[in-house]
Amino acid sequence: MIRATGADYALLTDLYELTMAASYFEEDMHEEATFSLFIRKYPPNRGYFVAAGLEDALNYLATLRFRDDDIAYLESTRLFKKEFLDYLKTVRFTGEVWALPEGSLFFQDEPILEVSGPIIEAQLAETFIINAINLQTLIATKAARATVAAGHRRLVDFSLRRTQGIDAGLKVARASYLAGFVGTSNVLAGKLYDLPIFGTMAHSYVTSFSSEIEAFRAFARAFPQNTVLLIDTYDTIAGAKKAIQVAQEMAARGQKLRGVRLDSGDMAALSIAVRRLLDEAGLDYVTIFASGGFDEFKIARTLAAGGKIDAYGVGTKMGVSADAPYFDCAYKLVRYGGRPVMKLSTGKVTYVDKKQVFRRFDDQGLMAGDTIGRRDEAIAEATPLLQPFMSKGKLCQPLPSLHASREYFLQEFVKLPMQYKSLENPPAYPVAISPALQALQAEVEARVRRQEL
Amino acid sequence: MIRATGADYALLTDLYELTMAASYFEEDMHEEATFSLFIRKYPPNRGYFVAAGLEDALNYLATLRFRDDDIAYLESTRLFKKEFLDYLKTVRFTGEVWALPEGSLFFQDEPILEVSGPIIEAQLAETFIINAINLQTLIATKAARATVAAGHRRLVDFSLRRTQGIDAGLKVARASYLAGFVGTSNVLAGKLYDLPIFGTMAHSYVTSFSSEIEAFRAFARAFPQNTVLLIDTYDTIAGAKKAIQVAQEMAARGQKLRGVRLDSGDMAALSIAVRRLLDEAGLDYVTIFASGGFDEFKIARTLAAGGKIDAYGVGTKMGVSADAPYFDCAYKLVRYGGRPVMKLSTGKVTYVDKKQVFRRFDDQGLMAGDTIGRRDEAIAEATPLLQPFMSKGKLCQPLPSLHASREYFLQEFVKLPMQYKSLENPPAYPVAISPALQALQAEVEARVRRQEL
Repeated sequence: MIRATGADYALLTDLYELTMAASYFEEDMHEEATFSLFIRKYPPNRGYFVAAGLEDALNYLATLRFRDDDIAYLESTRLFKKEFLDYLKTVRFTGEVWALPEGSLFFQDEPILEVSGPIIEAQLAETFIINAINLQTLIATKAARATVAAGHRRLVDFSLRRTQGIDAGLKVARASYLAGFVGTSNVLAGKLYDLPIFGTMAHSYVTSFSSEIEAFRAFARAFPQNTVLLIDTYDTIAGAKKAIQVAQEMAARGQKLRGVRLDSGDMAALSIAVRRLLDEAGLDYVTIFASGGFDEFKIARTLAAGGKIDAYGVGTKMGVSADAPYFDCAYKLVRYGGRPVMKLSTGKVTYVDKKQVFRRFDDQGLMAGDTIGRRDEAIAEATPLLQPFMSKGKLCQPLPSLHASREYFLQEFVKLPMQYKSLENPPAYPVAISPALQALQAEVEARVRRQEL
Repeated sequence: MIRATGADYALLTDLYELTMAASYFEEDMHEEATFSLFIRKYPPNRGYFVAAGLEDALNYLATLRFRDDDIAYLESTRLFKKEFLDYLKTVRFTGEVWALPEGSLFFQDEPILEVSGPIIEAQLAETFIINAINLQTLIATKAARATVAAGHRRLVDFSLRRTQGIDAGLKVARASYLAGFVGTSNVLAGKLYDLPIFGTMAHSYVTSFSSEIEAFRAFARAFPQNTVLLIDTYDTIAGAKKAIQVAQEMAARGQKLRGVRLDSGDMAALSIAVRRLLDEAGLDYVTIFASGGFDEFKIARTLAAGGKIDAYGVGTKMGVSADAPYFDCAYKLVRYGGRPVMKLSTGKVTYVDKKQVFRRFDDQGLMAGDTIGRRDEAIAEATPLLQPFMSKGKLCQPLPSLHASREYFLQEFVKLPMQYKSLENPPAYPVAISPALQALQAEVEARVRRQEL
């Protein structure tokens, strides 16, 4: 799955997508269906989402097909008739996709993406599309929060070892970079996504030498331009003193120690003490890098306590979005055969039909409120956000590079008023439903209630 | 990554593994290193772990090599010297692995796996091995807890759409099956791992028809042997009555409706009401399947409230281990060049040297306590748990099939006394450190403190 295609992953789907498809095939149901992807509810302490994962979803749709070995496997389950399996071999995605560009900010209930196409094609894609967009949106949102806490300080993704699997490891590197991180420790992600990569040494490196200072010297020999010494293997202050000695040995050779890394203990107090030791030794150019359990909350606490940290390695808690490890992300049928549809299941409202999100800005250019409306509405002085990305199964606009999406995110994020960026209990950003959509919603609900209850 | 190999994923590593390797290469450090993989601390409400992921770790080690395009990428970073990159091309894993078989129960601080080999080889593998074992162990442990809550009722993995990526989707299906689930909705996992697959219809299926009952009839036509009707799209009780009508129509044709599925609302109350309606209609053979936010806690609550549910679809909360989305899993150098080593970093103790875990059983065959000792110790009346799986870079025993590992887990789990299976605040299972290991640990710590502080 290094880059997952629809040809490799056609079977990466829930069985019910295929059983429903088989029934649609038997009933000769091939009319256009529209599915809408959205997040129902903010997890704790979230007040905005950062859209990510669209490139993977589109790539999957553009390449979706069932290979012979997939068909053979499905045949072996004895669930499906031969006519349906023959039909499946011919399935390609021929529909359209409207979506928010990656790096967009969006809010509860707003569609991130809407897929329209013959119902079998649009239904089959459900599982993959939710999976791709849920993960990267989850991580981009978490990573954006860390950048809010860190201000101008640099953040590097250090999460690979404890991400939930390989694919997550790669996508976390991508999504955190999109949301403002400067790079990752993940070498394969660096290669695949053209990301800056970071890293120098682990505790094992230090303990493998006969003494800590010999380890430091050996590393400086190997990487005179790129030495960041990990100083907490035995004791952070004792380690800092040895790092200073090595920095002075390097300086005598005309080299500069780049930094030291703290990885345990009271980060604020230790960073203050280490900064003082470095500065007293004339090493103001040596930066302090910190890692070890950081997320937006620990970054904020450490800075509030006066921590002198120039850059953070942000690992597991960002990489699994530990305080909110999933979004309540759904892909719901909103229209079939020209008819807007809805379910009524307890506590789960879905807005019907093809939609658009409209955004208003105040006179300083800050985001002032959104309206979810019908796709073909026009709302005065508001910008429509969903764009057509795919038409008749083909991309209809070139996708921006990841670097361009990152720039787009950074520009957009500045426009979100500060109060919504609060790390704890942010207020609700205003999202209205247009009168036209409200009227249609009420009409469909009345029809469904009359008929089914 | 459908099956991730070390040839495809040599670069799926933290950059520091490569910079350390480059320094070891320059310093001519090629002696044997031993790394120990263990979990430092139980997350909330955990009192045991279920080992999983070993097959992936071993497969990676057996196939590890850097391809030409990997080397070209590393060269492009300008971090590494040509001699080192030439050497990297030749790197293969030539060491040994001792590990707990998949499906084993283990506890805090106990090594799950120990890798010994030339330091560069054993160090490079760190990131991949932690990633593989952390994820599957996390999920197998979470899934085992769900089986405790469910008792004899069947559990099916429904998590794919919101797992953290594609790899997680596959591994969650595998690990939950290992821990006693009966199968998954994930078709590709079914194909790859030979798992039973489950699924019938979504709400979108129901809403795409002009009425709910027509949707039910169409599905029964397509899958007369395998119809489970989702009855909560509009109203669960109204849906149940339509399902009963369709079941009676099927019965008139000599067919049996397999089940109904509830997916929202008060599951205990609704399942009791639906069971009564079914039974009153003479449909006692129709099973009730429930999904929607289930984890071990919701299963237990629903059963405590008298819920009449035969099987559960367990989704997101299991698939991301939502209440504990990572383990504090570490891979630490414990011995290099014949010398036991340790770090002293605040709050992080690592037991030195090659180790073994010994388990005692009481006279009913129940687990009575473990001792972590030195690898070459023998402890009377206790069973050593770590087994050699790889020697000189090759598998030294055939790996059991997933089905065999599942059987092994089920056998072992019966031996864990009930109190440790409590879903909330279980007591600590007794784990001792052998006198020989304690003595060595004290000696190494004294030496390190004398030298470094």
